[in-house]
Amino acid sequence: MAQKPSIPKGTRDFNPDQVAKRSYIFDTIKSSFERFGFQPIETPSFENSDTLMGKYGDEGDRLIFKILNSGDYLKDLRKNWSSAGVLINNFFLFIEGLFIRDISKWDVDIKKGIEDFFDEEYRARVEDFIDKRKVMLLEVNNRYKNFSQAEKAFQRQEIFIDFFETYILNKLLDSNESSKIISEKALRYDLTVPFARYVVQHRNEIELPFKRYQIQPVWRADRPQKGRFREFFQCDADVVGSKSLWQEVEFVQLYDEVFTNLGLKGTTIKINNRKILYGIAEVIGAQDKLIDFTVALDKLDKIGEEKVKEEMRNKGISDEGISKLQPLFTLKGGFGNQVESLKTILSTSEIGLKGIEELEFIDKAISTLQLKSASLQLDVTLARGLNYYTGAIFEVSAPEGVQMGSIGGGGRYDDLTGVFGLKDVSGVGISFGLDRIYLVLEELDLFPETVSNKVDVLFINFGEAEALFALKAIKSLRENGSNAELYPDNAKMKKQMTYANKRNVPYVVLVGDEELKNNQYTLKDMSSGVQQKYSLDELLNKVKK
Amino acid sequence: MAQKPSIPKGTRDFNPDQVAKRSYIFDTIKSSFERFGFQPIETPSFENSDTLMGKYGDEGDRLIFKILNSGDYLKDLRKNWSSAGVLINNFFLFIEGLFIRDISKWDVDIKKGIEDFFDEEYRARVEDFIDKRKVMLLEVNNRYKNFSQAEKAFQRQEIFIDFFETYILNKLLDSNESSKIISEKALRYDLTVPFARYVVQHRNEIELPFKRYQIQPVWRADRPQKGRFREFFQCDADVVGSKSLWQEVEFVQLYDEVFTNLGLKGTTIKINNRKILYGIAEVIGAQDKLIDFTVALDKLDKIGEEKVKEEMRNKGISDEGISKLQPLFTLKGGFGNQVESLKTILSTSEIGLKGIEELEFIDKAISTLQLKSASLQLDVTLARGLNYYTGAIFEVSAPEGVQMGSIGGGGRYDDLTGVFGLKDVSGVGISFGLDRIYLVLEELDLFPETVSNKVDVLFINFGEAEALFALKAIKSLRENGSNAELYPDNAKMKKQMTYANKRNVPYVVLVGDEELKNNQYTLKDMSSGVQQKYSLDELLNKVKK
Repeated sequence: MAQKPSIPKGTRDFNPDQVAKRSYIFDTIKSSFERFGFQPIETPSFENSDTLMGKYGDEGDRLIFKILNSGDYLKDLRKNWSSAGVLINNFFLFIEGLFIRDISKWDVDIKKGIEDFFDEEYRARVEDFIDKRKVMLLEVNNRYKNFSQAEKAFQRQEIFIDFFETYILNKLLDSNESSKIISEKALRYDLTVPFARYVVQHRNEIELPFKRYQIQPVWRADRPQKGRFREFFQCDADVVGSKSLWQEVEFVQLYDEVFTNLGLKGTTIKINNRKILYGIAEVIGAQDKLIDFTVALDKLDKIGEEKVKEEMRNKGISDEGISKLQPLFTLKGGFGNQVESLKTILSTSEIGLKGIEELEFIDKAISTLQLKSASLQLDVTLARGLNYYTGAIFEVSAPEGVQMGSIGGGGRYDDLTGVFGLKDVSGVGISFGLDRIYLVLEELDLFPETVSNKVDVLFINFGEAEALFALKAIKSLRENGSNAELYPDNAKMKKQMTYANKRNVPYVVLVGDEELKNNQYTLKDMSSGVQQKYSLDELLNKVKK
Repeated sequence: MAQKPSIPKGTRDFNPDQVAKRSYIFDTIKSSFERFGFQPIETPSFENSDTLMGKYGDEGDRLIFKILNSGDYLKDLRKNWSSAGVLINNFFLFIEGLFIRDISKWDVDIKKGIEDFFDEEYRARVEDFIDKRKVMLLEVNNRYKNFSQAEKAFQRQEIFIDFFETYILNKLLDSNESSKIISEKALRYDLTVPFARYVVQHRNEIELPFKRYQIQPVWRADRPQKGRFREFFQCDADVVGSKSLWQEVEFVQLYDEVFTNLGLKGTTIKINNRKILYGIAEVIGAQDKLIDFTVALDKLDKIGEEKVKEEMRNKGISDEGISKLQPLFTLKGGFGNQVESLKTILSTSEIGLKGIEELEFIDKAISTLQLKSASLQLDVTLARGLNYYTGAIFEVSAPEGVQMGSIGGGGRYDDLTGVFGLKDVSGVGISFGLDRIYLVLEELDLFPETVSNKVDVLFINFGEAEALFALKAIKSLRENGSNAELYPDNAKMKKQMTYANKRNVPYVVLVGDEELKNNQYTLKDMSSGVQQKYSLDELLNKVKK
């Protein structure tokens, strides 16, 4: 009954070192969130399916992990199938009828037969079946009277099974349709929709503006690949219930604060505004192609100017429109310079100018308040899930030289909670990409040495009396803030020392006969190899954290 | 499209206050775990189904949440169904045959018909069907030749649908059978089985003895009720790879440490040993009734001596045996006294005496090392999932006067990893019941005031220039360790103060024209109502954390 153990693809085990490093990132983010006045909430791992379904597009729906109902979850599916019994029976009668009908009245008879035997839902299906197999059926019908009993039975079976598999099985065991019947719960796909649900459900307990943060895992049935997992943590901070641009200012500062605290200096906080994208589309007469236009523009970094223009042309954006864009491709310099160019481009677009005004507000405030280690950069090609955002759009990239996609992103989205029945609640928020931040810190060797919660002192076990004597010292060491433990077994010295080495324990304490008699402890510094005898007080002092 | 939002039964949203209190408990437990040399690991929320299924008994299997496969998960079920088409067709032919058979040769003909039309799998089912409906079928057969065409069709439909629903549907849409086909992953049910899987899967990276802790949610499709949830956290610490009783000593100390640190004084750590239970069963000649015997004994607290005896008698334990138990019911006094009585009872049981020896070892060590606030108590009625544990059994109860079940439990289990192919690895561990500990701390008002990460200072928003000036001070306050924020909108003063009140903000800062001019901040102490002007340095000093 032994099984070779493994875990589902796209999921991960985390060993002690990894957990410690991840906790370090979480804790840093959390404490910054709290400094900025955000409060934690937590929502259940699974939500009612109708809370999640339809919120992430068809592709998203497909990627949501569904949980099978408990108990006899197929009960209702069986109930649906009961009607299939009648259908199957009718189909039999119908085939029989087919075979004794006068072939000259075939079409009229078929039509009448279908009306007699099938209800509306199935009529179209039976007609489709007959239609596709008309020639074959006519032939069988023609020869039917001459068939032997066995041949007749064989023909009928062929036709029935064809119908059964094509029409009945595929319809009644349809995965999409059945999901709603056999699964009513689904694993969280992100933290934004559950947050919107939370805000609406608890609206009477919440004081708006509500600043919440949430650090929890989410699950997506995506094809796993390097850096993309089926279970991963999201770290989100959002404010709902205020349209104030000070929030955007705060979020830029928050990004700077977190990455500075993580020692990750030189990040770039890219900012854009959906209103600018809309304004540009307006100016070039492509409002109806807003998504095509921004999807193409978003690729500028990757595929270059010419290919972006080609894609726009292919999507039906006029040459004239594209020529108006020319300044966009050559936008250079700091925030101010870019904004001036944009003002020229967008001079005829009210909404575009509004977007510029918002950007300028944020830039001005940040210039006064100053960032610690990040820089704020305008990037008009930034789109990020355009349909979602309605104002500011953020994305953070790692310091230059590190090959890594964005390590954070966010933006403003009006009407976050509308889908749950609470209108006109604006939200703005940012997210930190834990897994990528981890990889960046690892690559740049930025995890503090002290991150891993290693054991500080290991006591070697020389037998019962010695062990008990050791445990007394261990108790004091722990009270002193040290992580201390006794090797549990009175094993060979070599084995115990190997264990100490493999676990990277900095200090080992040896208590033998002599130490026991003199009420002393021999402390061995594992890096220098130096051994010395100490009293308990001295020992506590020596390994003080 | 507005939905009334809700969450699945048995799950919970946690508001900021609850998250803060839960984090306080988690953090306290975590830091004690680390003091004692335990290292954190984390495992995926879902495991391959075959890792979990069959590990918790039939009842457990039923309570495991299964995750629907992605994509066209019913594909394989449809494949299975294809064979049903042939079966259905054959059943039709068979019914027809039934009706034209000579009733005098009924039994012989039926038998032959079944053999002709059905393969082995279905023969028994068809026979059963015919058997149960023989009288009815005979009657129909008898009258069949006189039926009109319509009556014939009606009769055949009745019989077919009966068969279809009773025999085909129930078999092919069986929830248990289908689970294996449409679901290959399941949500973690506890942390012990995933830990065992982890140890075996990573055995080459792990140094034994391996002391791990794990604090993660688990999911059970239990009927939700007061204090029982479908998603809840487990906090486990276990050691694998050592049979040393020092581990048991350490776990008793660990319980004491955690509850003391939580301010929860006066807990009782109850201890028993499976070997003692086995020894008692041996002495009274009921080894084969070990489970019945201990289940009954476990109820002593609740139902009293007489009813326990009655239950034992009902389970077939002899009066002579029960009379040998008499001393158990009157076990009184401290550890030592109880042990002496047990030694008398168990004098003829080698394994029982071994259990006593283990208990004495632990008691002696704990007496020397001393507990801070808990007391260790022998409880021979303690059983807790007996099949699982093989040595020590622990259970912690809240201080007297608090009505609450156990707030922690654990024990030693040999061969933890055997089911995954790694034999002879002994494990011992304990678990903390987060939800119950939360309730006890709440009831006894033991959460520290500082637990909630509230905002320390809120700045009122009087307009753009004032807000920017405020944000400079906020930046300094945050660097000083305070949680500070700006009210985002330039709303009416009253609205902003109401917000400050509802969020329980201790300090509010007002910056108007005058303050801006004089580079000052008006600080209002919300509890006293006192307002005073300060420079930035003074302000920082005043609200220093």
